[in-house]
Amino acid sequence: MIDKDAVSSVDAVKAIWNKEGLDGHLGLSVDHVADGIARVSMVLHREHLNLYGTGHGGALFSLADSAFALACNTRGYVTVASGCTIEFLRPAIVGDCLLAEAKWVDTNGKSSIYDVKIYNDKNEILAIFKGRSHQTSKLVTDFSSGDNK
Amino acid sequence: MIDKDAVSSVDAVKAIWNKEGLDGHLGLSVDHVADGIARVSMVLHREHLNLYGTGHGGALFSLADSAFALACNTRGYVTVASGCTIEFLRPAIVGDCLLAEAKWVDTNGKSSIYDVKIYNDKNEILAIFKGRSHQTSKLVTDFSSGDNK
Amino acid sequence: MIDKDAVSSVDAVKAIWNKEGLDGHLGLSVDHVADGIARVSMVLHREHLNLYGTGHGGALFSLADSAFALACNTRGYVTVASGCTIEFLRPAIVGDCLLAEAKWVDTNGKSSIYDVKIYNDKNEILAIFKGRSHQTSKLVTDFSSGDNK
Amino acid sequence: MIDKDAVSSVDAVKAIWNKEGLDGHLGLSVDHVADGIARVSMVLHREHLNLYGTGHGGALFSLADSAFALACNTRGYVTVASGCTIEFLRPAIVGDCLLAEAKWVDTNGKSSIYDVKIYNDKNEILAIFKGRSHQTSKLVTDFSSGDNK
Repeated sequence: MIDKDAVSSVDAVKAIWNKEGLDGHLGLSVDHVADGIARVSMVLHREHLNLYGTGHGGALFSLADSAFALACNTRGYVTVASGCTIEFLRPAIVGDCLLAEAKWVDTNGKSSIYDVKIYNDKNEILAIFKGRSHQTSKLVTDFSSGDNK
Repeated sequence: MIDKDAVSSVDAVKAIWNKEGLDGHLGLSVDHVADGIARVSMVLHREHLNLYGTGHGGALFSLADSAFALACNTRGYVTVASGCTIEFLRPAIVGDCLLAEAKWVDTNGKSSIYDVKIYNDKNEILAIFKGRSHQTSKLVTDFSSGDNK
Repeated sequence: MIDKDAVSSVDAVKAIWNKEGLDGHLGLSVDHVADGIARVSMVLHREHLNLYGTGHGGALFSLADSAFALACNTRGYVTVASGCTIEFLRPAIVGDCLLAEAKWVDTNGKSSIYDVKIYNDKNEILAIFKGRSHQTSKLVTDFSSGDNK
Repeated sequence: MIDKDAVSSVDAVKAIWNKEGLDGHLGLSVDHVADGIARVSMVLHREHLNLYGTGHGGALFSLADSAFALACNTRGYVTVASGCTIEFLRPAIVGDCLLAEAKWVDTNGKSSIYDVKIYNDKNEILAIFKGRSHQTSKLVTDFSSGDNK
């Protein structure tokens, strides 16, 4: 299923990873990007906690959303989220190494669906995210020369 | 609809606002908390941006989720999110002052629904969030003496 | 907010109400349609029940979805659902007269958000539905001459 | 992963399939039920159509919801939906043979997540459904002797 265009799109999307934006601010790392797939990880620190001292829903969502964004931008065109759902199953605790894995599910026209799961070190699922993306007519490569910095 | 217990719960939930957690790390401010209602704001800075230089979905979600958390913890019991949905309508840009307003919708048993809308300075809706909460049997006041720090 | 075009669109959307489709098959009635608003009702019968003898989630969803469809087609253009969420709060029982009320929330470009609530006779909320619609370039009036029959 | 208790629960859940309820009214058929899995099918007829003559969102949701209900009741305990999301990707047309396949994803405590996909004859995905279930303390076998009729 991997085609050459996808490979170059993967390079393009890696090139726009924005270390100065939220991804860097939260300490996210890109582990793997391929056609329609991305894995992003983070270690849960005190600055990611909520009122009760466990991982803030926004930290988990940000991790999943970043994996989703990388995965859905591997298709060559600038693609944005239109809506997302997240179900929380287990809390994250300080020190957890969290991994979000995003996978393309299906596309019709400019609309696609991606599934993302967030795992902890014990391979337990902490949260299940579903994202709907909308593909624009702009090319990712137009951004990868540094326009976003 | 405001009752005395709610008023003391509002004080309790304000007391557990965690400046050292994600809320502080993202620069969120509590504008207003009342029974079943909360308003939280943030100014969008570079550290909140996504791949394309607009507000990261995770920054918007975090803002909405924090307003939701405050609103649903005003009822006296420690209450957690079970699932959330967010629909993105317009992008946030650097310098925007964003306001999330969370309102209780309904409760049955230990399960409640809250609506949250995120507005920019022009009073445009940027995102619409719906949260489902689950009330535990622990009291918020048990945390407000500083257990989460 | 009501404009003349909306009024004629309301007539057009009423004209395409499909009694021979699912709406008629489930016994739904249109109570009210206006610009961005619709109320649809049904009486819960045995043919609407689930495995455990209460209202099937699909019956409640259908009621909400039909109210959503009427409301989002009052803007003149053929508009379809892209995604929906539903939260169930209380069961419906045989004999309940159920009312779904759909209200427009916001629009950006061709994408809009609608809220729908389902009430029983006691004015309790049974379910909370959120729909995202996508507006096509076709006119509703092109269908109201009977093309869908 | 299949255990003996699950096998008897599968029999119990098959026994409560309610032909006189919505499932029968819409013409749904149970194709397969196993531990955490269910496949339900329907042929799309005129009584399943929406305003524009394609499959009503409520018909698709009902199909998915019934598969979800069977799958999540194979665990021995009466289990109900707390909330669901559905994304529509392609329209269903009259004569389509639609298949909904529900699969358990994960459980924590009394809360579980299930994925459901709806396919047409061409194996295209028409809709993607995610359900969150809540397990009660009642046994499915208490219903299978005909209490729901």
